[in-house]
Amino acid sequence: MIEVAVMGFGTVGSGVVDVVEKHADSIEKRANVRIGIKYILDLRDFPGSPYEKKFIKSFDTIINDPEIKIVVEVMGGIHPAFEYTKRCLSSGRSVVTSNKELVASKGAELLRLAKDNNTNFLFEASVGGGIPIIRPISQCLAANDVVEIAGILNGTTNFILTKMISEKKPFAETLALAQKLGYAERNPDADIKGYDACRKICILASLAYGRHVYPEQVHTEGIEHITLKDVEYASAWGGVIKLIGQVRKLENGKLQIIVCPMFLPCESQLANIDDVFNGILVRGDSAGDVVFYGRGAGKYPTASAVVADVIDCAKHLKTRKYLFWSDGDKDYVEDYKQNEVAMYIRAETDDDALAFKNIANCFGSVERLSRKDAEKGEIAFVTKPMKEKDIDDKIKALAGLGIKTVNEIRISDL
Amino acid sequence: MIEVAVMGFGTVGSGVVDVVEKHADSIEKRANVRIGIKYILDLRDFPGSPYEKKFIKSFDTIINDPEIKIVVEVMGGIHPAFEYTKRCLSSGRSVVTSNKELVASKGAELLRLAKDNNTNFLFEASVGGGIPIIRPISQCLAANDVVEIAGILNGTTNFILTKMISEKKPFAETLALAQKLGYAERNPDADIKGYDACRKICILASLAYGRHVYPEQVHTEGIEHITLKDVEYASAWGGVIKLIGQVRKLENGKLQIIVCPMFLPCESQLANIDDVFNGILVRGDSAGDVVFYGRGAGKYPTASAVVADVIDCAKHLKTRKYLFWSDGDKDYVEDYKQNEVAMYIRAETDDDALAFKNIANCFGSVERLSRKDAEKGEIAFVTKPMKEKDIDDKIKALAGLGIKTVNEIRISDL
Repeated sequence: MIEVAVMGFGTVGSGVVDVVEKHADSIEKRANVRIGIKYILDLRDFPGSPYEKKFIKSFDTIINDPEIKIVVEVMGGIHPAFEYTKRCLSSGRSVVTSNKELVASKGAELLRLAKDNNTNFLFEASVGGGIPIIRPISQCLAANDVVEIAGILNGTTNFILTKMISEKKPFAETLALAQKLGYAERNPDADIKGYDACRKICILASLAYGRHVYPEQVHTEGIEHITLKDVEYASAWGGVIKLIGQVRKLENGKLQIIVCPMFLPCESQLANIDDVFNGILVRGDSAGDVVFYGRGAGKYPTASAVVADVIDCAKHLKTRKYLFWSDGDKDYVEDYKQNEVAMYIRAETDDDALAFKNIANCFGSVERLSRKDAEKGEIAFVTKPMKEKDIDDKIKALAGLGIKTVNEIRISDL
Repeated sequence: MIEVAVMGFGTVGSGVVDVVEKHADSIEKRANVRIGIKYILDLRDFPGSPYEKKFIKSFDTIINDPEIKIVVEVMGGIHPAFEYTKRCLSSGRSVVTSNKELVASKGAELLRLAKDNNTNFLFEASVGGGIPIIRPISQCLAANDVVEIAGILNGTTNFILTKMISEKKPFAETLALAQKLGYAERNPDADIKGYDACRKICILASLAYGRHVYPEQVHTEGIEHITLKDVEYASAWGGVIKLIGQVRKLENGKLQIIVCPMFLPCESQLANIDDVFNGILVRGDSAGDVVFYGRGAGKYPTASAVVADVIDCAKHLKTRKYLFWSDGDKDYVEDYKQNEVAMYIRAETDDDALAFKNIANCFGSVERLSRKDAEKGEIAFVTKPMKEKDIDDKIKALAGLGIKTVNEIRISDL
């Protein structure tokens, strides 16, 4: 019998307890040992819960009980999750978490602590919910150099963009619907501003390239400025708008990494990943493109990923998994203004014909886009690939000529 | 340093040697030990090969060398791969294989032998080439009951069907093209008759449900009878034809398992998996639907999966992985004639109007399909779901009324 403590009885935590109880027999078969939940740490009361006797309010109960071998951290946030996790790892306990904020901020430190104490720190559930992705990258693709990772990593924004595309409802209305359906939180910033996707691409990048990338190093844009006009122009261009987290290694050893909405051609392997689903493309030098697709969030998908990690810990109590990456470096990420990218630009002008003459002078040949019901003076085009900083300069020059850029969206090369 | 022997220097074997040499440093980092290839067993000569000095012609060289800890079996076929693998496992060596025929026929026996000798028998490359699938099912989805697995498991047939659909070229012509491009072998039976897909769904079913399913237990149909007429009717119905391997557990404890072409609705998660790509859908009771997508074959994708298993073996030389399933049972698979399924039927008749009266009498209401350029007397329809044996009876009854069934294709409920 291996005793587990669960810290946090929110959506994921209660799912973890349910899954462990419901699948107790098949988990025992797979882990070769019975796994039981001894404590649930939560400051709130849950009167009438079938797990009532397991609730505790003090972390000390866990740390002082030598029977506890595995701790599940599903509180969310960095404090006190970070301090608790450190103390658990330092005491030789394995820790499993779904907390992407914690892993994205403190992963290197916690992985080193796990290594120093010959124990495990696992976090399959932190990216992609129930989609297996951490283990496939670290194990199955171990014989590959990862050329690139790109993904739709946030279900809330994907739901909103899908509805905007398929039902032609504006952003504010679809956001309200997402909130009503429980897909978006009352304060939706972490999702719609791209912070959540940023944490996830940081975790994937750190894992794939062996060195920590911190969220503050990653240029991150959300979807709050996407309008139905942009959706229509994307369609005219032959694609859809998706919020993409993307990382690749440059020849200079630095990472090119970004989170932003992008135009994806309809043929792209990620273009058909709709609604709350996530999809992650991993391009290996040997395996080629591999795509993982499924529900990226939700109580039971996430809980089942946590419990799979608990089973893995139970099987490896005395051997360490080799999940590891080293500390980051402030020069590890290339300035995104150095990236080469083609750009969709929507602008306003008083004189279409003159504007496109000026645009051609400035950008060279561009692909002009049109849409039904375009407003007077509204123009849109897609540039050739060039450095972002050069695009900025050209946009500034156009502004001086009376062509006012209203929105810019990068064109994906996926 | 861990010494490895590779048995078979065909497409996959030479890929394995290349990957191990090319990625030697990053593999060492991931395995925490240097991995070297000491022997390559092949009866043929490879003069001028950079690996010339490693070639051996006798299996005894491997079995008598105590330095060899891991053996890669990529010879294909059952004999002598089976005997060699048994001797390696019996001597405590780990074995990694990409040989789906071997695993599908002898998996339970070899897994037991591995267990008895406290060593590992791994076969990630046997299904889905470079797509991680064995490990995700056995580890990441360990906290799920697998409700169902369905997949496009054979790239050759998927390439042929894709070309038939997109370019309206008949079966024989697309098969010839696939052979020219090296996607199909000169004797293409294993692919087009569904045997290859059958072996793979057997491996997935054995793994997911813990008991061996043998290929001869699985009703298997290929794609050789699919015509452009059927492709057009599928399109009229709102879908595409794909060769699907599918398994689910029935309430009576038996497995429903089949390999056959199916009509898939365009919205299905597998409908857009085209060309030589494979896609595998795993439906877990907690994780929901997870889809894995990528190149299901090819030298380097498959080799990279083999090498990932070699790395895993190197990390677990003294601990056993818990990959395991028990022997099968002749009553374990439900007679496919008991399956409930809707059926597409293409038939010939002298009198359309009378025919559809008789069909309605026989099948109840059906969905009538039409296509441009239908030949005189050609009709097609889709039945409601019913037992296959009842469909057989009704088709016989219709034959007595002058309605001659030409082709039948099952309708997927995916």
